[in-house]
Amino acid sequence: MSQRPETPLLDRVQYPSDLKGMSDAQLKQVAQELRAETISAVSETGGHLGAGLGVVELTVALHAVFDAPRDKIVWDVSHQCYPHKILTGRRDRIRTLRMKDGLSGFTKRSESPYDAFGAAHSSTSISAALGFAVARDLGGAPETGLGDAIAVIGDGSMSAGMAFEAMNNAGHLKKRLIVILNDNEMSIAPPTGALSSYLTRLYSETPFQDFKAVAKGALGFLPPPFQEGAKRAKEMLKGMAMGGTLFEELGFTYLGPIDGHDLDQLLPLLRTVKARATGPILIHALTKKGKGYAHAEHAPDKGHARAKFDVITGKQKKTPSNAPSYTRVFADALIREAAEDPRVVAVTAAMPDGTGLDLFAERFPNRCFDVGIAEQHGVTFCAGLAAGGMKPFCAMYSTFLQRGYDQVVHDVAIQRLPVRFAIDRAGLVGADGATHAGSFDVAYLSNLPGFTVMAAADEAELKHMVATAAAHDEGPIAFRYPRGEGVGVEMPERGKLLEIGKGRVMKEGTRVALLSFGTRLAECLSAAEALEARGVSVTVADARFSKPLDEALVLRLAREHESLITVEEGAIGGFGSHVAQCLAENGVFDRGLKYRSMVLPDIFIDQANPRDMYAVAKLNAEDIEAKVLTTLGVEVMDRRA
Amino acid sequence: MSQRPETPLLDRVQYPSDLKGMSDAQLKQVAQELRAETISAVSETGGHLGAGLGVVELTVALHAVFDAPRDKIVWDVSHQCYPHKILTGRRDRIRTLRMKDGLSGFTKRSESPYDAFGAAHSSTSISAALGFAVARDLGGAPETGLGDAIAVIGDGSMSAGMAFEAMNNAGHLKKRLIVILNDNEMSIAPPTGALSSYLTRLYSETPFQDFKAVAKGALGFLPPPFQEGAKRAKEMLKGMAMGGTLFEELGFTYLGPIDGHDLDQLLPLLRTVKARATGPILIHALTKKGKGYAHAEHAPDKGHARAKFDVITGKQKKTPSNAPSYTRVFADALIREAAEDPRVVAVTAAMPDGTGLDLFAERFPNRCFDVGIAEQHGVTFCAGLAAGGMKPFCAMYSTFLQRGYDQVVHDVAIQRLPVRFAIDRAGLVGADGATHAGSFDVAYLSNLPGFTVMAAADEAELKHMVATAAAHDEGPIAFRYPRGEGVGVEMPERGKLLEIGKGRVMKEGTRVALLSFGTRLAECLSAAEALEARGVSVTVADARFSKPLDEALVLRLAREHESLITVEEGAIGGFGSHVAQCLAENGVFDRGLKYRSMVLPDIFIDQANPRDMYAVAKLNAEDIEAKVLTTLGVEVMDRRA
Repeated sequence: MSQRPETPLLDRVQYPSDLKGMSDAQLKQVAQELRAETISAVSETGGHLGAGLGVVELTVALHAVFDAPRDKIVWDVSHQCYPHKILTGRRDRIRTLRMKDGLSGFTKRSESPYDAFGAAHSSTSISAALGFAVARDLGGAPETGLGDAIAVIGDGSMSAGMAFEAMNNAGHLKKRLIVILNDNEMSIAPPTGALSSYLTRLYSETPFQDFKAVAKGALGFLPPPFQEGAKRAKEMLKGMAMGGTLFEELGFTYLGPIDGHDLDQLLPLLRTVKARATGPILIHALTKKGKGYAHAEHAPDKGHARAKFDVITGKQKKTPSNAPSYTRVFADALIREAAEDPRVVAVTAAMPDGTGLDLFAERFPNRCFDVGIAEQHGVTFCAGLAAGGMKPFCAMYSTFLQRGYDQVVHDVAIQRLPVRFAIDRAGLVGADGATHAGSFDVAYLSNLPGFTVMAAADEAELKHMVATAAAHDEGPIAFRYPRGEGVGVEMPERGKLLEIGKGRVMKEGTRVALLSFGTRLAECLSAAEALEARGVSVTVADARFSKPLDEALVLRLAREHESLITVEEGAIGGFGSHVAQCLAENGVFDRGLKYRSMVLPDIFIDQANPRDMYAVAKLNAEDIEAKVLTTLGVEVMDRRA
Repeated sequence: MSQRPETPLLDRVQYPSDLKGMSDAQLKQVAQELRAETISAVSETGGHLGAGLGVVELTVALHAVFDAPRDKIVWDVSHQCYPHKILTGRRDRIRTLRMKDGLSGFTKRSESPYDAFGAAHSSTSISAALGFAVARDLGGAPETGLGDAIAVIGDGSMSAGMAFEAMNNAGHLKKRLIVILNDNEMSIAPPTGALSSYLTRLYSETPFQDFKAVAKGALGFLPPPFQEGAKRAKEMLKGMAMGGTLFEELGFTYLGPIDGHDLDQLLPLLRTVKARATGPILIHALTKKGKGYAHAEHAPDKGHARAKFDVITGKQKKTPSNAPSYTRVFADALIREAAEDPRVVAVTAAMPDGTGLDLFAERFPNRCFDVGIAEQHGVTFCAGLAAGGMKPFCAMYSTFLQRGYDQVVHDVAIQRLPVRFAIDRAGLVGADGATHAGSFDVAYLSNLPGFTVMAAADEAELKHMVATAAAHDEGPIAFRYPRGEGVGVEMPERGKLLEIGKGRVMKEGTRVALLSFGTRLAECLSAAEALEARGVSVTVADARFSKPLDEALVLRLAREHESLITVEEGAIGGFGSHVAQCLAENGVFDRGLKYRSMVLPDIFIDQANPRDMYAVAKLNAEDIEAKVLTTLGVEVMDRRA
């Protein structure tokens, strides 16, 4: 464990109210100590570092000036919430971040009343804050009252359509609402898009050094009352506002850019806004992701996410792995396909690293498109590419593809356009918890007419599925694969074309058939081994496709076994439901069959390592074994409690 | 049938190529005749009138200047596509619009190569057109080649986040791309939002009369080559561009505003753009929805959608109905609840009329929020309202709620916030066809932990469900109901509170149980009657809830009957899948049960009247009867073919 920093002033702060009596100079010291404590905590837990370091001063300023939890501070995405958690009664648990039974790595309403709104997906904060503002003006929550509604949103998040929709609505409603644009020129990757260039122009044309004195003079910017004797400040503020035309046109008062690390600018400006704001206000604060920790500031990703690390050297303590990650396998396989077919192109929504498309972009810079945090556009852009004769691979995390669901239905499925969906982070994902789980894609894709839906059982299968998708021009096709490393199977030189709608039998037995869809296959095989040791003969099959379903395989397994059990890393409504429908329609249930469908349970599962999460979900080998035994009615003496 | 208009010049136009030799004066006459033909056709078929009349000149100009289908014209939403269809080889079928086996009311790729991209939901056009533009530049579709990509998008559609995402990406990619902003100050309802005010300011500050001569002089606006002797035009164009800062900031060259009904402006401007455009261009055309037909122009909705009508009087030929529409029942019930509970608020995404919230807004103007075409924001705004202590009713069509799916999962379900979803247009909807079908909501909501999902079997049930939702503070709750009129049941004075997770038995029988979820209940009761006449005793039950499921009822029905059949107006993965899971987990299939699940089939069903669509779906009474008989193995002699 690294040595913990000395934090004499921070030690006196348990809740934001403890900041209230402090001088500005003391608040600056609190900020310094808070930064050190954040670095120390994340070095022990791993997690999102750069974003939090970028808002240390902003966090102190917000909690010093406003009155949470009555005032609602909504952190967009909330990667940046660790300093906020430290100041709001959770410092004693900050070294349990992202661990099982520990603090969530995101804001979470059930964790603290200071977490006004939970987040983990981007660009929701302005909508939520506007909801609070309207509720306040309608007398919501009369027992406590509602105060100010404040959204803190990064420039990357601002590029999503949802944020624009919220700004558009807020500008129309004209409620008192404070949006702080935390502009660090980064989302997770460097942001792309015209809005990003616009923001850069804003402050390159009006460098904030000129405005060092502005904030203190900002008293005059909001009528009434008119402040005499602040002409210089007024002129400067006019300059500031002139720069923010885009926001002004949407009905916001624009203030900025200011230095988001300078409490001498932040504190007076926030105090003035608190005292005087009437309608919607946008404060443009320039910050540095990773600020104050050289190993983060100078990293290409600005310390976005880190494994546990040594504070002095910045070196991360990663567990070495023998198998390649699924993400890497996908990227390599796609590069291989693209080398042979110039029609292959790839689209990511602000996740080039996370999806592996950074590697693809290195090789094919003109055929890789990062659309920004814009899944809706990304999906339909792919539909347009497909209609134009290309072979677009739309690489998104399962949970983020939910953002483009209507586009998947309306633009891709109904038109039967051959968009290839590479769905990363399928199933439970570990430390990011429930908000990042890829639980629903099998259900919400498999019932779309004309779709083909696959799940990879291991990394070699993933390679085959990339090749199969590349070759599949008959309509939309999706393949899902989990976070993390593969199982270490031998990798083929080149992916082979899978026969559409055909599964494979891994192991023939006689009494029970386990039909897996996805990477639970390994667990099924383990369970089968344990069952065989008990004298229960087990067939194990890999369905490969939830759609079209291998009905011949399903019906044969049903016919030849006493029991058929499906296993998948998804919620009800997906693979198992399609199998059940097939069995019902074919009259299999009429005669009786010990059929069970193992799916994700009807709960949102908190963060832990994936294996522990699957234990909660009861989808590990021992759970499958137990399911078989209880289904067969076999007496079990030595089961775990 | 009304008398058909004289259209001597239009009669010579079967395809856009027939416009190529015409003079501008002839094109003007074609436009006049096209308008008359559009009015005549819609008077016979009903359909979307106002939008098409607003783009008659634009349609003629686009097809005269550009070369479809090589050039890709993408009509946003495509309510406005009837004139386009008339000019692109489909005039002979234009009087079959929106009918069974007739032309779709929207663009549809499978209908014509001139329909470059299908649409019916809004704001997809820029994304799709950008896809075409990128595909073109990468050499897509080498056999035909790809030409210009042109998106025609209304100001209402432009307010959706997806359009902003696409503009942001297009401004970044700098591809040659033409976006025509068809600004009629209307979406379906008058638009709300700050963007709308911005557009109004744009042309009120620079009225387009000043620019009558601009378009002809527009040759100079795009470098190179620089045009000498067009200084005046350059000055004017500079003025035009100055007005469009918001678009300029996003990387577009802004041209406008121009009079979208004046071919003397449209034709030269489009010709110039075609000759010279390099990067993304936005042409701001002012039009009038309903233009040229007084009965549309002067209507509050500008003739948005019309039943068949008399051309002279404008009077619509609606079939009178005795039962109130479900939409109306919802609105009345919500008003009733809101009158007693000041925390009830309502949110619509640009559909105040369609959802009945116009009535709510009349009564409670401060408690009704039209967020614009912005379902993502709308859902999370509701989540914020709920977190602020209000009782938000989020009223959206099933198909449009897909736009906010991630927000339903991430902002509402995970946080267990008590947002009430009033889901209109559930199931098949008739003339709007597959794009508007509400097929997937039961599946995509019922697998979300903590959700309560109801479907109304009739209009009285809907009233109960509104009351039940208003009282339900424990988490999110949804209720779905179809388009159209109720079945005419007696209406209660006030909705009563339904017991959560409890269904009801309508009729007790002995051999077969029909378990309905939604308005197929009436069909189940008819089927039961027919079956009783054949000597098959039938129980009919209404599940009311797909979640939480009435497991006691399901298991009792399974226990006491030879066969259990579920019936729902939704795709696989929904109600029936939850019933099957319950039966499997309880070992019911082990012993054998003639279980079937009747769901929407695995096809997108084309427009027809709803009853015909349900015949295709095999969900009418006779289909249910047939299903029972084949399931029981009863010989049937007199079945329809």
